[in-house]
Amino acid sequence: MSSTQGQVIKCKAAVSWEASKPLVIEEVEVAPPQKMEVRLKILFTSLCHTDVYFWEAKGQTPLFPRIFGHEAGGIVESVGEGVTELQPGDHVLPVFTGECKECRHSSTPLSMLAVLPRLIQQPHWIKFVFSAVGYLQAAEGARIAGASRIIGIDLNPNRFEEAKKFGVTEFVSPKDHDKPVQEVLAEMTDGGVDRSIECTGNVNAMISAFECVHDGWGVAVLVGVPNKDDAFKTHPVNVLNERTLKGTFFGNYKPRSDIPGVVEKYMNKELEVEKFVTHRVGFSEINKAFDYMMKGESLRCIISMDS
Amino acid sequence: MSSTQGQVIKCKAAVSWEASKPLVIEEVEVAPPQKMEVRLKILFTSLCHTDVYFWEAKGQTPLFPRIFGHEAGGIVESVGEGVTELQPGDHVLPVFTGECKECRHSSTPLSMLAVLPRLIQQPHWIKFVFSAVGYLQAAEGARIAGASRIIGIDLNPNRFEEAKKFGVTEFVSPKDHDKPVQEVLAEMTDGGVDRSIECTGNVNAMISAFECVHDGWGVAVLVGVPNKDDAFKTHPVNVLNERTLKGTFFGNYKPRSDIPGVVEKYMNKELEVEKFVTHRVGFSEINKAFDYMMKGESLRCIISMDS
Repeated sequence: MSSTQGQVIKCKAAVSWEASKPLVIEEVEVAPPQKMEVRLKILFTSLCHTDVYFWEAKGQTPLFPRIFGHEAGGIVESVGEGVTELQPGDHVLPVFTGECKECRHSSTPLSMLAVLPRLIQQPHWIKFVFSAVGYLQAAEGARIAGASRIIGIDLNPNRFEEAKKFGVTEFVSPKDHDKPVQEVLAEMTDGGVDRSIECTGNVNAMISAFECVHDGWGVAVLVGVPNKDDAFKTHPVNVLNERTLKGTFFGNYKPRSDIPGVVEKYMNKELEVEKFVTHRVGFSEINKAFDYMMKGESLRCIISMDS
Repeated sequence: MSSTQGQVIKCKAAVSWEASKPLVIEEVEVAPPQKMEVRLKILFTSLCHTDVYFWEAKGQTPLFPRIFGHEAGGIVESVGEGVTELQPGDHVLPVFTGECKECRHSSTPLSMLAVLPRLIQQPHWIKFVFSAVGYLQAAEGARIAGASRIIGIDLNPNRFEEAKKFGVTEFVSPKDHDKPVQEVLAEMTDGGVDRSIECTGNVNAMISAFECVHDGWGVAVLVGVPNKDDAFKTHPVNVLNERTLKGTFFGNYKPRSDIPGVVEKYMNKELEVEKFVTHRVGFSEINKAFDYMMKGESLRCIISMDS
């Protein structure tokens, strides 16, 4: 049992008090873990576009003050009543979705989506990965799965050179064309791509991602988080013509079942994760991580909590 | 070789000259089959809602005069140049989609949809079949697949008794509720149905069919043909929450590969088709078939061409 078990503790936190304003590092009190909760000591965290999305609070209900940092790694500090599968000192990755192993969500057989490599089952086909923000992770998945063509759509042509490291073989900037990008793609790919993945959350990019897949077999997957008043709109004939639209939250991973296997792959050097880490800062410099991302300079910036 | 090979022939036809007006039986000339075409002698046909849809010509570009009858059975009368797999006298079912066995459409591995029984893979789950027109065929597929609950959505409560024959276990009339039918269904089914099938082509029914499936695993399939100016509209978060929207045209059947197996199942009495046939008329009474359907009295009315 930890010496702080059941106690309120004091911690440093980077608090966001206002939309788009620098975070302020201050001391906060953290309540002891309640029933079925655990309290973690975070060692490292990284900055994700979802943090920036809530920090900018555009097209959503603002919620401040708040503390970000959902892409983290740490150790269990103490546990609440009823927690039997974790104990202080365990190394953990907090994730934003659960797996109780009892409800229907937990017992659902994975659909064809599950994770990217499972999505992409016909390596002789054209593959396609769509949209600026976050698409390199999707490209990496398509590359690992053996996709023959991976087309990155990006408004920022400066990223193209770097994107090649992640398997992107061709680039399209919507700015370079007078017609909708789905028409450009249909011409490039003999009628449409086999798979598309939308990572920005921009609703027009979502519609393009759906309409650019080939009729008869194309599958579009939405990953990016939309604004709260957005409407996805398409002619229903685009669906009738045997296109599929899917969405995923956390890649359909069941975290407790699936994440340990991913960590193991990384430890066995079967996954190249380092190339995603472009910057590292200490906790006191956390606002730099926001700057890097806002300028489009970083992919992932790791923040060390102990410095 | 048929004696009419290469000749123009004269036939009786029921011609539609104007939207929603009775067909007129008259003599028409039929050109000889061109390269890769066959000319058929139709023995029986049935009336489908798609015929009625084009006959009413609402929400579409009207095209008259025209001759309907795409749900037919007949024999090959003569064949055009290059046709090697059919000869005069062969019994055939014309269908409205092709399978060349060479293009990518023909070689696409069937997605999870394919046919209804393949769609429904977890017989312990709640199943759901949606929307008035044509839903009994979908219900029959769900019944054969072992669905535990089959909910019919119908504005016409008179159909409920008959629908039970096709496996429908529960009924909802949207008219009986003040809230959207997707909310009614979510309450009935602990959060949503596992599968929904939209058979009307009404765009609001399509949206309800999508939004009524359970997050995490629900799949909605659109079958009904929409009007040409319709827009399918939903909040993208409904997709992000791991719902899937699919469409199908002819049930994703590859006709040459898949239809013979269906006929065989029928011949072996493994499929109950007779219960769909509620009326029979001779060709001279073809307008009665339209009356039966417009009044909601018939499921399928078989029209015999020889009487």
